[in-house]
Amino acid sequence: MKKLKRSERLVDMTHYLLKHPHQLISLSFFSERYQAAKSSISEDLTIVKEIFASEGIGYLLTIAGASGGVKYIPMAGEEESVQLVEDLCRMLENKERLLPGGYLYMMDILGSPQWMNHVGRLFASVFAKQEIDAVLTVATKGITLAYAVASHLHVPVSIVRRDHRVTEGSMVSINYVSGSTKRIQTMSLARRSLQEGSRVLIVDDFMKAGGTARGMINLLKEFQAEVVGIGVLVEAEDVEERLVDDYVSIARLEEVNEKEKRVQAGPGNVLHQLKEVSYDEKRSYE
Amino acid sequence: MKKLKRSERLVDMTHYLLKHPHQLISLSFFSERYQAAKSSISEDLTIVKEIFASEGIGYLLTIAGASGGVKYIPMAGEEESVQLVEDLCRMLENKERLLPGGYLYMMDILGSPQWMNHVGRLFASVFAKQEIDAVLTVATKGITLAYAVASHLHVPVSIVRRDHRVTEGSMVSINYVSGSTKRIQTMSLARRSLQEGSRVLIVDDFMKAGGTARGMINLLKEFQAEVVGIGVLVEAEDVEERLVDDYVSIARLEEVNEKEKRVQAGPGNVLHQLKEVSYDEKRSYE
Repeated sequence: MKKLKRSERLVDMTHYLLKHPHQLISLSFFSERYQAAKSSISEDLTIVKEIFASEGIGYLLTIAGASGGVKYIPMAGEEESVQLVEDLCRMLENKERLLPGGYLYMMDILGSPQWMNHVGRLFASVFAKQEIDAVLTVATKGITLAYAVASHLHVPVSIVRRDHRVTEGSMVSINYVSGSTKRIQTMSLARRSLQEGSRVLIVDDFMKAGGTARGMINLLKEFQAEVVGIGVLVEAEDVEERLVDDYVSIARLEEVNEKEKRVQAGPGNVLHQLKEVSYDEKRSYE
Repeated sequence: MKKLKRSERLVDMTHYLLKHPHQLISLSFFSERYQAAKSSISEDLTIVKEIFASEGIGYLLTIAGASGGVKYIPMAGEEESVQLVEDLCRMLENKERLLPGGYLYMMDILGSPQWMNHVGRLFASVFAKQEIDAVLTVATKGITLAYAVASHLHVPVSIVRRDHRVTEGSMVSINYVSGSTKRIQTMSLARRSLQEGSRVLIVDDFMKAGGTARGMINLLKEFQAEVVGIGVLVEAEDVEERLVDDYVSIARLEEVNEKEKRVQAGPGNVLHQLKEVSYDEKRSYE
């Protein structure tokens, strides 16, 4: 790369950092890339860091020492997140979403990269410190959200299937009981799609009784994997007994009245969870 | 937002543009956001534009006039794209991918946000001028790629299913003949997941005889939609008669020999297609 001025470096550096979340980038890398002294690079990074923090883009962590550098951690701002949750609730309350059986049509939200990118970033913020190795979801509707979360965490996505395809090699299958219909179902995960012992974040679009999530947790045991968190876009409220209790939700359905064509949604617990994640550099981040 | 210096504006502006591909942003927006004169904003954008162009980030199109502004068009550089295609081919040639029946395991690539982000950007570059309204794919394996393409084009993803779910409302179904197995199958798309008359880009992970793509084309007719392009990650070569002939592929399988455990892959036609897309501002972009 040709030698750049500060203003030019900042454009390229911002792009580079945004494209490499959760990855340690050494000062030497930038110093060589821009043919600039490390002291200049440090000054650049201070500017980037301040703007990333003040505009709710994320944290730029500085890791000192010989193996040090900087790491961009996507971190949604509080104000923006409150707005996102609020907007999602209003979207969900549109009675046009109501389908026979009290289901809600959500593919417009799940199929929107803009929505998924925002929600994915919010989940990645909440789980930023969990040292996640992979995001797991179940086909089909959770995939876009899982991908969006994974891309902000810089980890792969693994997809559990309810059918069995010849194009995935040997698969591990389990039976599970759907929490709401009480029917026995099967789910499978390709053996090679997840490393044994991985730290896994489960992501799905919807949780009712939690049978599917429970199934995924059991499936993960077959991979000696550890579940470090569960994130769902929408949770149903009218659940007698939930099969999992530790999860993060963006929105919560408070009422779905098919007859009177009324849907009421409120915030899930994500805003509370977000508050607990804070990057105080003095307490240091590894 | 508080008043920022140029260096600070450039960081925020770069972030803002990258998050809003294919969207027209007026100079007034930036001028108000940063409390800066339009002339200063113009100078900022000139710096961003040059770096975006020289580093293969994309084009920053300037649209003059009262309703004008700037638009960031993700555009993969040629050198980077040649490397991407080359890397993908080498990945595919790993004989560990070979599955019984001559299938190739590809979920590691399809589940990697990094790979999908690169490939998605490349497809978005090739189809940048097509005024696409939606990306269509078929569940399950094409979804991550379709999402990645859609997010660079700033359009929604619609997902065709081979089963029928109660959570998607009324669906339009068609029967189609799988090109390679010659069996009759069904595919469905939720009525409300695609606006009638949309201009659609079809994206899938793999194309053999093209039966699935042909099916999607027929399904789109039911929505009075227009197919403006087809993008596949990998195409098989040993196909007697392909059911679709106008498509863009990243890689092409040249040989899959299950017995001798050998896979050979070469570049698809994407690099050729990429060369045909050029943004010459004098010829203007609408």
